[in-house]
Order: sequence, then structure tokens, then C-alpha cells
Amino acid sequence: MKKENLRPIFWEKEGLKLLDQRQIPGKKEWFTAKNSEDAIFAIKEMVVRGAPAIAITGLFGAVLELKKFSKKPDYQEFQTLLSKILESRPTAVNLRRAFEELSSIFPKDKYDTVSLSELQQKSEEFAIHVFEEDIRNNLALAKNGVGLFPSSPSKLKIITHCNTGALATAGHGTALGVIRSLKEAGHDLIVYADETRPYLQGARLTAWELMEEGIENYLMTDSMAGWLMSSQKIDAVIVGVDRVAANGDSANKIGTYPLAVLAKHHGIPFYIAATEKSFDFKITDGSQIPIEMRTQDEVTRLNFLKNEKGEAILAEGVIAPVGVKALNPSFDVTPASLIKAFITEKGIVPPDKIKEFFG
Amino acid sequence: MKKENLRPIFWEKEGLKLLDQRQIPGKKEWFTAKNSEDAIFAIKEMVVRGAPAIAITGLFGAVLELKKFSKKPDYQEFQTLLSKILESRPTAVNLRRAFEELSSIFPKDKYDTVSLSELQQKSEEFAIHVFEEDIRNNLALAKNGVGLFPSSPSKLKIITHCNTGALATAGHGTALGVIRSLKEAGHDLIVYADETRPYLQGARLTAWELMEEGIENYLMTDSMAGWLMSSQKIDAVIVGVDRVAANGDSANKIGTYPLAVLAKHHGIPFYIAATEKSFDFKITDGSQIPIEMRTQDEVTRLNFLKNEKGEAILAEGVIAPVGVKALNPSFDVTPASLIKAFITEKGIVPPDKIKEFFG
Repeated sequence: MKKENLRPIFWEKEGLKLLDQRQIPGKKEWFTAKNSEDAIFAIKEMVVRGAPAIAITGLFGAVLELKKFSKKPDYQEFQTLLSKILESRPTAVNLRRAFEELSSIFPKDKYDTVSLSELQQKSEEFAIHVFEEDIRNNLALAKNGVGLFPSSPSKLKIITHCNTGALATAGHGTALGVIRSLKEAGHDLIVYADETRPYLQGARLTAWELMEEGIENYLMTDSMAGWLMSSQKIDAVIVGVDRVAANGDSANKIGTYPLAVLAKHHGIPFYIAATEKSFDFKITDGSQIPIEMRTQDEVTRLNFLKNEKGEAILAEGVIAPVGVKALNPSFDVTPASLIKAFITEKGIVPPDKIKEFFG
Repeated sequence: MKKENLRPIFWEKEGLKLLDQRQIPGKKEWFTAKNSEDAIFAIKEMVVRGAPAIAITGLFGAVLELKKFSKKPDYQEFQTLLSKILESRPTAVNLRRAFEELSSIFPKDKYDTVSLSELQQKSEEFAIHVFEEDIRNNLALAKNGVGLFPSSPSKLKIITHCNTGALATAGHGTALGVIRSLKEAGHDLIVYADETRPYLQGARLTAWELMEEGIENYLMTDSMAGWLMSSQKIDAVIVGVDRVAANGDSANKIGTYPLAVLAKHHGIPFYIAATEKSFDFKITDGSQIPIEMRTQDEVTRLNFLKNEKGEAILAEGVIAPVGVKALNPSFDVTPASLIKAFITEKGIVPPDKIKEFFG
């Protein structure tokens, strides 16, 4: 596996080491999960975020807990352990899928034939497999993304949204992974990162990752992309995705859809970087993807940057009238017609070809 | 003159009373300017903002200072007084125009024939005239805007951006003035207010004004308008403007242009509410309008809500990595092709008719 500069998760002797995302960009601190309770805390309290990163944390949380048994847990105990971890983020699809796969390694009717050490060892092997596969897929995806641009070193200006980097995955990232690999390929890159209100993943995490990697970048408010596209030549918009429907409609962080409309208006190619795990062919189109409405407080207050003691780390305060009603859809849907192509680990796929490509 | 519920400026015996916008939405406090120094402070420190409101504050600041003279100032003294106030916000066009008009009342070659009391009285009369004219124009403009919608009470959903309300003017407002008048006309209104990053005029001021008026409203981040337009029937987008070029291209608060592109994409009429003073026929098109680039700190920090002692009133903190480079264009240009019409005090004017209309 390729050595990455920025890795947010390490599986080590003393436990699962997680880069504490609540402290970024203020401090670079590590949180070590030594049991399943620690893993649950890390997921619930946003020490770690991003669907792939959550799945990996949950899996290693289960492994850590299994290692503490001196006598093999019965099947019910094993399942209860997984359920407890799964409850820490009930909507995270990747974590649920990962646990379904883990369970299928030890089918109920054959569970009695498995020894404690087999249970421990195979679970750990599976967790490591998911972890390594995620990095491998991201690197393959990024390589395919690089192929979309000139092969000789070029000046490239790219806009991205939210955080799709090493911090959201096992490493490298999806959309930000493509950007990382473009830099490694020798391009003279400038990245414009939307701050991504309300949760500010772009300002807090993406800008930080880009600075850590030494990639030239400018932070901007989500409202500035239009001005930017009309005043400079932008080569591409590259974003991640939460879920892709069978027709190519794509749900991603709120603010993605306006960016796609603006890109179309300016003739700028709009790409979505995603691994096969993000494609959900059970859903026919974007109208069937439920949009999570989150708390109004994320819009009216800045009070999310807190440590374990509830102390404000970076910012806290009201930014709107007390009692104001606020909308807070967490995602929007970008119709397939606005997407030039998906950048995946298996190749570049236009929206109307995803079914035959992954089918 | 029609009595308004929300008035941010009062000319009273003890001086010019200004609703302190630094305190909103936290507190409703009044700041009284008793001389030109107070007026300069109010403009510089954002006690008052909005081009028409700044012009009125500057004019009354001059009036207050003139009243303190027991002997008539010579012409140079008079001009120096105006220049000092003008320096408080050098880019504010309305203030410069107002002072040019005031100066033209007392031409240099006839200045000696004017008595102190005439100077004081005519200056005060002119300031009151500008003040009342602004409200009168806003009310006329709003009435014309109401005419764009059904005459029978209807359910109307409107998106607006930044603050264009009573707080930005002598009273009533421009885009928000139309919204006020739609409510008064009996419509069942829902207003969606962009928070308007980076300075949050929508969150801090527009949401507050709408709540004060009892108009149903939802605050949203600037990135949510796309989702809103695709998930609900929106009747119109109405915004204000900073400067309109001769071809109809319009510079307004950053984030206006993406909103216009989205409105076009969704077939929603996009209106700009403006008085004749915003039209600048010396500029042929939008590319000639200079875009003010403001401090990066507005994007990377929330530290603007301070009182005179520099104490944080509402929010303070870093929201991005220290040292990150940020873009902060304060305005963007919406091309005439995306604007359905201008709502003005003299009527509704499509972009290609503004020259003959105001010529």
C-alpha cells in the first residue's frame, strides 16, 4: 500500500488511533479507542466523520471488544455488541453494510463451530481488509480522475465542496483524493474550497487538509463560486457523493446542486468522485432519496466546535435572532443531467452508463 | 408620510437617533449622534449601514456640526467639514452625491451672501428632504412591486438575499420594502432569507426585521436556495442592488448572481428593487463595475459583532485554519439577461428599457 502523508486512522497495538476532527483546524491531536465504548464515543461525538471512516471505526471497535473476551461470546452477545455500535450513527449506510458483511463471515448455524481466537482473528482481518480496500479504491479512483486532465503538467483551477479527503475515509479521499493525485502528477494546482455552511467542513477540514499537503488553496463562502466562475477560467468542479440513484441522480452535501447548476451555466465540467459502494441501484431516481433535515441550531448558532468537556474550542455564539426558524436540509440532489461523469475506482462513467458499468 | 413600524433613523431635538445595528439581533438599542464626530463613528463602526442610510447619517452629521457654529464658517471650513465626514466611508456613492447636492445649494461664488442661520436652516431642510424622499421612493417602489403579484390575497413564497430593509434605508426598504408591502396588501407570505455570508446581513438583520414585522420567514444558508427551488414552488426572487450599469447588468451583494442563475434554471422570476439613484448610465456594462475585495478575516473569523469597547456581543472565533488564504469579493455582477425586471419608484422596467425609462 502506498504511504500517504495524511492518514486519519491507524490500527496499532494499543488500539485504534483516530485523528480528532473536533480539534481541527485548531490542534492535531490523536484519540485512541481501546474498546467499543470508545469507538461509539468517537462516532457520536464527531471525533471521526465521513461514512467510510465511520464504518472502519465501528469495525475496529467491535474487534477491540472481541479481544477482551476470555471465553467466546454466544451468538446473541456477538450480535448485541454489533447493534450497540451500529446505534451510534443509525443512518450511516457504510457501517451497516460492513456489519452485515462481518456477520455473514460467522453465520448463525455455523457459529458454534468457530473458536474464540478464530472469531477475534477473522474479525480483525475483515476490519483491516475494509480499511485497506478503502484506501486502495480511493487511490484507483484518484488515478482515474487524473486521467481526465492533460498528461503534461498544467495550470489547473478546481472547485470543491465539503470534505471528501483523507479525513472522511481511511485515507487519500475521494474528490480530494483526485486533487491530491493531480498535485502528485505534477500539475500546478489551485483549489477553491467552499466553506460549506452550515457545518463548515470546507473551512475547518478541507482547507486544513490542503494546507497540510502544501496544495495552493483559497477558502471561499458558498456564495462566491458564481463570481469565481465568471471571473476566472475554472477547469473542473469535483465533489463527493452520499448516494447515487440508478438513473445517476446524486445526493450530496447541501450546496452541491447550486454548484452543478453554475458549472453547467459556465460550461465547466462537473464530476462526482465515488467508489462503487455509493451507488444504490435499488433507488430509481433522486426524488426517492430521503433528505435528512438537521437541527436549526447548526444554521443559527456556531456552537459545534467543542471538546469532551463541552468547552468551546474555536467558535461559539448566536448569529441570528433568538427564535428564528431556520431550514437545514443536510443534502441536495443533483440531477444526472448536470453531471459530466462519475470518477470511480473502476473507471470514468457517464451517468447514463452506471447501470451497465456496475451491473 | 406613511407611519412605518420599523424606523432605524429619527431626527430629534437632541440629535440623530440611530438604531444600533451592531447590537442587532441581540438588543434594540439607540445611538444618538450629537455632532459630526458621532456621525463619523456611527458610519465607520457600522452603527448604521446601507448606502441610503449612510448618506442620511452623514448629512445630519454635517447639520449637527453647523448648528454648533456661533459665527459662520468660511467656505473652506464648510468644505473641510463635509470632506471629513465623507472620508468615513469613501466608497459610499450615495453619501458623495448627497454632499455634492448640498454643496451646490451654496455655490462658492455666492457663499458670502449666505448668513449662518440660512446655512444651518437650508442644510437641515436638505437633509430632511433626502431622508423623506428616500422613504417616499421606497414606498412608491414597493407599491409598484406589489402590482407584479395577484391583486387578491394569495399564498406567496419569496426568496431574498442580504438586507435591503428599513435598516439599510431611511425606512421601509427596497426589496424588503416590496415584501413588507405585499404583507400589508394581505398576502399570505413566506419569506426565505439567505443568511448572506460572510457578513451575515440576512441572518442578523433581515431575519430580525421580518420577525419584528410578524412576516413568516425561514433563515437558510446561501447554499440552500437550490434545494428550496427544486423542492417547493417559489413565486419570486427579489433582491436589492448596489449599482446598475447602462445595459442592466447589476452589481449586488456576493451571492446574488448564483441566485439569479438558479432562478433562471427553475423558471422563477428574478427581480431587482432599486430607486433611480442606483442606476449609473456612465457605466456601459457590468464588467466595468469594480468589485470590492474585502478582508479575508470576514471569511475565516466571526469577529465582527463587537461593541465600542471591542467586546464580542454575539459571536467570535476562528472558523478556518490559521493562515488560510480566503477570497472575499463583496459583490458579484448579475447579467441583465437573468433579470426579469427592475422594480423602481417610477414603475416596473425590464433591463433593456432602463435607458429610455430614466433617460
